[in-house]
Amino acid sequence: MKRHLHLNLFVMGRGHHESAWRHPLATRTSLTSFEHYQQLALLAEKGLLDSIFFADILAFGGTGKQAPSTQLEPLTLMAALSSVTRHIGLVGTASTSYTEPFNLARQFASLDHLSKGRVGWNIVTSWAKDAEANFGHDQQPKHADRYAKAFEFMEVVTALWDSWADDAVLDDVAAGVYMEPSRVRAIHHRGELLRVQGPLNIPASPQRHPVLFQAGSSTDGQRFAARYAEAVFTAHPHIESAQAFYQSLKQQVVAAGRTAHSVKVLPGLSAVVADSDANAQRILTELNELTAIETGLAHLSNRFGGYDFSGLELDRTLSLDDFPDPDLVQAAKSRAGVITDMVKAQRLTLRQLLTALAGARGHFALAGSPERIADTMQHWFENGAADGFNLMPPILPAMLDTFIEHVIPILQRRGLFRHAYHEGTLRERYGLQRPESRYFAGISRSLSGA
Amino acid sequence: MKRHLHLNLFVMGRGHHESAWRHPLATRTSLTSFEHYQQLALLAEKGLLDSIFFADILAFGGTGKQAPSTQLEPLTLMAALSSVTRHIGLVGTASTSYTEPFNLARQFASLDHLSKGRVGWNIVTSWAKDAEANFGHDQQPKHADRYAKAFEFMEVVTALWDSWADDAVLDDVAAGVYMEPSRVRAIHHRGELLRVQGPLNIPASPQRHPVLFQAGSSTDGQRFAARYAEAVFTAHPHIESAQAFYQSLKQQVVAAGRTAHSVKVLPGLSAVVADSDANAQRILTELNELTAIETGLAHLSNRFGGYDFSGLELDRTLSLDDFPDPDLVQAAKSRAGVITDMVKAQRLTLRQLLTALAGARGHFALAGSPERIADTMQHWFENGAADGFNLMPPILPAMLDTFIEHVIPILQRRGLFRHAYHEGTLRERYGLQRPESRYFAGISRSLSGA
Repeated sequence: MKRHLHLNLFVMGRGHHESAWRHPLATRTSLTSFEHYQQLALLAEKGLLDSIFFADILAFGGTGKQAPSTQLEPLTLMAALSSVTRHIGLVGTASTSYTEPFNLARQFASLDHLSKGRVGWNIVTSWAKDAEANFGHDQQPKHADRYAKAFEFMEVVTALWDSWADDAVLDDVAAGVYMEPSRVRAIHHRGELLRVQGPLNIPASPQRHPVLFQAGSSTDGQRFAARYAEAVFTAHPHIESAQAFYQSLKQQVVAAGRTAHSVKVLPGLSAVVADSDANAQRILTELNELTAIETGLAHLSNRFGGYDFSGLELDRTLSLDDFPDPDLVQAAKSRAGVITDMVKAQRLTLRQLLTALAGARGHFALAGSPERIADTMQHWFENGAADGFNLMPPILPAMLDTFIEHVIPILQRRGLFRHAYHEGTLRERYGLQRPESRYFAGISRSLSGA
Repeated sequence: MKRHLHLNLFVMGRGHHESAWRHPLATRTSLTSFEHYQQLALLAEKGLLDSIFFADILAFGGTGKQAPSTQLEPLTLMAALSSVTRHIGLVGTASTSYTEPFNLARQFASLDHLSKGRVGWNIVTSWAKDAEANFGHDQQPKHADRYAKAFEFMEVVTALWDSWADDAVLDDVAAGVYMEPSRVRAIHHRGELLRVQGPLNIPASPQRHPVLFQAGSSTDGQRFAARYAEAVFTAHPHIESAQAFYQSLKQQVVAAGRTAHSVKVLPGLSAVVADSDANAQRILTELNELTAIETGLAHLSNRFGGYDFSGLELDRTLSLDDFPDPDLVQAAKSRAGVITDMVKAQRLTLRQLLTALAGARGHFALAGSPERIADTMQHWFENGAADGFNLMPPILPAMLDTFIEHVIPILQRRGLFRHAYHEGTLRERYGLQRPESRYFAGISRSLSGA
């Protein structure tokens, strides 16, 4: 079967560029209104995208007078969208650090029922100091501890999702048998950090469990992805690093006993797209001119665990001495590394770095005509850098609209993207297997009708 | 202003009678399908009810081959319903015992935005042994400890909901000011059991916080309700105990410094309603004939913290010696007391008790014509027993349908119930005030448009 691109829409505010919220092309809908998110989900569905994704952070995360990056809680938002959409997948971030596994397993199982098998979970470990302080912890856990918890957490939630056989619910009115108790079982997890008895209190859902997304690209993050992830979001400023990551991750997946295609690699792509290269460049310039230095500095500081860059001159070329060692950053290590690599390779001033990050925070960003965007995507896709993309439109809905109207048709003509949705679960759309229950193997009914 | 009845629909499976799921009048929709709940919410909205309510328990709670009482997780279900309804309030149970206050405060704030101010929270403390075991605890907390946690939990979540001033978000595109940081503040909670820094990461919602429902009627439960509840669900097998509870609770509310009408008392009402008393009795007999003794015994045992009643003869008149002391039950004390009061007053055999409980688990149950139901509701409402009712139809949607078609019009003709929805939040519908922020008093904008 011919490989097809997988496309996920990453929704953030009025667009991924830091200044999008005030650009004239951006929507004016309120960021706390359902209508804002509904409009984007319906547009993504019109564009036949695989899924739509909502990031999260467990703290305010406000940077001065600018819009904070998250505005509504992902799981409730995904649920509200599930009843007004039909095909689009709904992916949301939730943390293994500060959520009870029973509660999270249950909300995702419920979402999978509500959406008829269209949910995905972007698994994160939490690192923001402010997040720690919202959950009764004085000490920030070390990077390695966060991952130890994440591995055990995954053991628990996947066991809970396995705790109902697909044939447990009979709903036999005549015989008076709603369910067969022997087809539901406790999990009796007693680990280092967690004790959970089970079973889950929700019958097995269409996908059995959400499609598991992951975004950490550190060594620990890649080890975790190799074991659990089914799709990986990743940030690369150029194709070479994307290719190296792609190859490395697929090798680790195979080493972990899984097939290479059981994990889809989706690099971020933030494309300013317009009818011509010149017009796209003009919009990018407008966006950059709306950018505030203090907002950029606050974001950069967050990326390096609170490190203070405000004393540096704006127009001096940066050196690595201006940054803390990424290996010592108790935050998202991989992104910190992306940023120091950019500084090293491109010899940027602080002002130039802030402008570069304002667009897509270290993800691949480009500006151009629909042909240029489609050419670039095809090149990455056919040269071992991507199985698809995590689309991060700099301005919403304008750049998404243009992408759907003008880039998607080119990809379709080239045989790289679907022409219609097929019925089925999100898991099926991504070409992934429905997991069997570890407790009730061999019994499986098709719940998706696909 | 004339008092009007408040009516909440309590949704449970295919109806509140233990055997409803297999009765020919019940719906056949799957209990894990969104359509099941959507159908009921739309019907309740057609009937102009104030709200619809979903109970919860943090464990499987299965009893043999019968349908477990909860099937989907309330918060995700409420969110999914918010986007396909317009007026009906959405109320769900969540526990203060095994949820992080930051997560719960946030999901409710998000729900309040998504629904435009239509959410309510039924606050419970958890007591089921099975629930404890799903959250890493070996020891079941004592009844008093559960309430100590509940009080502190409420301090935290209400402070989080107060952490954004109503005027914090300006979204001023021209000036480049999305928000005013000085109008958002940390809460710095450091209590006996919880440490939460805040602020919440969601702007103030239409109701500022969900309408607070509560259902425990023990001494601790009433003390909690007097301090926090805005609506109370309560179970009474006859009007006399409902009147005594109503008077006692309102006195405690006033003693706590609040006005008596700031809390609405909603006793449960499970009505088998048909065109004639005789037909209603016939349906009730059919339901009772479908009841299984073992299911009733399992439910009774749950009510008394796992006490084993299976050794008792079914047709001997019970005495209080057959029960553990309700004061020693580490479960829902108030309901255990309702049951022993029934046994004492009505001299029931075990078989008769199980039949009585199969209908509405100790709530007020009756069977009759629409006039009989309306007369009873009016009598309770006008004689100090109720501000409205928590409707618990024994069979869904049939008994709800009949109630809406035939009982509601009688109540409307008598001037006891609304003829149309007015725009506004759930809080406004229940005649309750929107709380002011403790941090930003005096500044309030109308978010509901009412």
